[in-house]
Amino acid sequence: MSEIRQDPVVGRWVIVATERTRRPNEFGSAGTPPREPSIDPFAEGNEHLTPPEIHAVRAPGSPANGPGWKVRVVPNRFPVLRIEGSLDKEGEGLYDRMDGVGAHEVVIETPKTGQEIEEQPLEHMASVISAWRTRMSDLLRDERFRYILVFKNHGAQAGATLSHSHSQIIALPVTPKTVKEKLVGAQVYYEHKERNIFSDILRQELKDGRRIVYQNGSFVCYCPYASRFPFELCIMPRRQCADFHRILDTELLPFADALKSGLLRLRAGLNRPQYNVILHTAPARYPKRGYWSTVDQDFRWHLEITPRLTQIAGFEMGTGFYVNPVMPEEAAQFLKDVEV
Amino acid sequence: MSEIRQDPVVGRWVIVATERTRRPNEFGSAGTPPREPSIDPFAEGNEHLTPPEIHAVRAPGSPANGPGWKVRVVPNRFPVLRIEGSLDKEGEGLYDRMDGVGAHEVVIETPKTGQEIEEQPLEHMASVISAWRTRMSDLLRDERFRYILVFKNHGAQAGATLSHSHSQIIALPVTPKTVKEKLVGAQVYYEHKERNIFSDILRQELKDGRRIVYQNGSFVCYCPYASRFPFELCIMPRRQCADFHRILDTELLPFADALKSGLLRLRAGLNRPQYNVILHTAPARYPKRGYWSTVDQDFRWHLEITPRLTQIAGFEMGTGFYVNPVMPEEAAQFLKDVEV
Repeated sequence: MSEIRQDPVVGRWVIVATERTRRPNEFGSAGTPPREPSIDPFAEGNEHLTPPEIHAVRAPGSPANGPGWKVRVVPNRFPVLRIEGSLDKEGEGLYDRMDGVGAHEVVIETPKTGQEIEEQPLEHMASVISAWRTRMSDLLRDERFRYILVFKNHGAQAGATLSHSHSQIIALPVTPKTVKEKLVGAQVYYEHKERNIFSDILRQELKDGRRIVYQNGSFVCYCPYASRFPFELCIMPRRQCADFHRILDTELLPFADALKSGLLRLRAGLNRPQYNVILHTAPARYPKRGYWSTVDQDFRWHLEITPRLTQIAGFEMGTGFYVNPVMPEEAAQFLKDVEV
Repeated sequence: MSEIRQDPVVGRWVIVATERTRRPNEFGSAGTPPREPSIDPFAEGNEHLTPPEIHAVRAPGSPANGPGWKVRVVPNRFPVLRIEGSLDKEGEGLYDRMDGVGAHEVVIETPKTGQEIEEQPLEHMASVISAWRTRMSDLLRDERFRYILVFKNHGAQAGATLSHSHSQIIALPVTPKTVKEKLVGAQVYYEHKERNIFSDILRQELKDGRRIVYQNGSFVCYCPYASRFPFELCIMPRRQCADFHRILDTELLPFADALKSGLLRLRAGLNRPQYNVILHTAPARYPKRGYWSTVDQDFRWHLEITPRLTQIAGFEMGTGFYVNPVMPEEAAQFLKDVEV
């Protein structure tokens, strides 16, 4: 059972997940993730090496937990949070703790060892995106969960412990601070201007044009004005919608297209960088509690891609400021010029 | 000239410091920092390889910018912020920017290549701490600066670009968000309880004892209850004081002793981990503006040491939650048992 602890000064939550503990002398020697298909637990044919699947996109008639799939969702074998446990907070003197309740799933993005998501055909990428949507919708039915995070760690320095192309889904029993900050910022803007901030950002970016990397009829991919990381990308839908899981069927292929364009440009231009992908969406809303009641007008879901070319160091940790050595306008121009 | 840009949604500041730019294909190949004394710009005898010194602890009569020093403070050759420029914010549509005004100094902690700060005698370490104090006091005389950050990046993954033992000082024209959050948290606690939260934390930690790693008459070194990182340490003064630069002369050696004990335990127990050190202190206060007027009772300066044994990944970036695989009580016991 993991434990969620709260910092008494700033209110930040920490998950102490001791099932992932290594011995002190093993830190820093995380080892090379398996590349050999026979020992890759996410490869087709090795379905017995993962817990039973929760969801899969597979050939009609192919049995669960066997070969024949394109995308497969399984519980994380070393979850940071588990379904069982109590949601009650407990005091420990001036500290607060609660059980590590939640869900932690892995989306295996391709059956083949060594293939990356951006190398797949658009239809395949759309199946991955559709799997995110299906799992998010399903997890939101559990009223204990306040926020569903979809993310991807690509490369060891970006936090990946297995190299096989995969993303992760974590359901959290509290709305995270970072998410609240975005919601509050968007809400304050709307109250002040009666306009959606993401819509205003998109309008300004499209008019200015210097930070746009790619666009299609439904999505725009650009380098944010205050990018924290060099070559950071944001993919923003043109249609106002707070919840990723309400993405339309007709938006799946255009979203796959924008994601593919962004990832391929990073890959070709920056020599296969390590990166994180983070999907920002609205938290669960329970009308009777009145939380985030204006989110449908204030907030818009979007996706961030952050190449990990620089280190998060003492300055960033001490201030929350980031130092970015590349002008977002130059990053956008560079990525726009990459041939993909 | 670097540029400070603000994220329009969450208000986070980013410094775009293009003097540090590498070409896109150079990212990820930061190279090995120089180890050879003859090419180490921070080694004694190579004073001509750095900008002229701002401050030094050196043998009586030895001339500035020559050999004979123990600790030397110089401007950073690739500063993220510079003294020149305007503090005015400018709009760019819905975005805000300002010039990158500030100061960025390097504290060279030892004249010898390959020696680490924790290997120095206590008196030498106290000289480094005293240099931090001197520079912070001096920079606070410039009313443009709101916050002075002292930090140390040790190891390439912790953000160090040179291996010679050094710390850094950055003066900022705005109070960073992370600092504000601590101040506000401490203020809310004081208003509610009429007690200083750091004093309450220290009392509870000393009574409980399970997270204490080391203590002397003036300082306590412990693993915080909600540690974000495995083997994270906090060094807290017993005496209430909001400002690091008001540390007493009689506290310099005890602080050096606590710092040495913490760093040596990490080094011996965890096989020389990479780490960051962050000094948390109160921001500049100008009575006529009324900012942070209660900080002397609310807040206490302290130092954090965060070994970098795990990666900051998508989950941390997407939520602000941290996942820590080691119980702080077990981390403290392990570090307490290390022979130093």
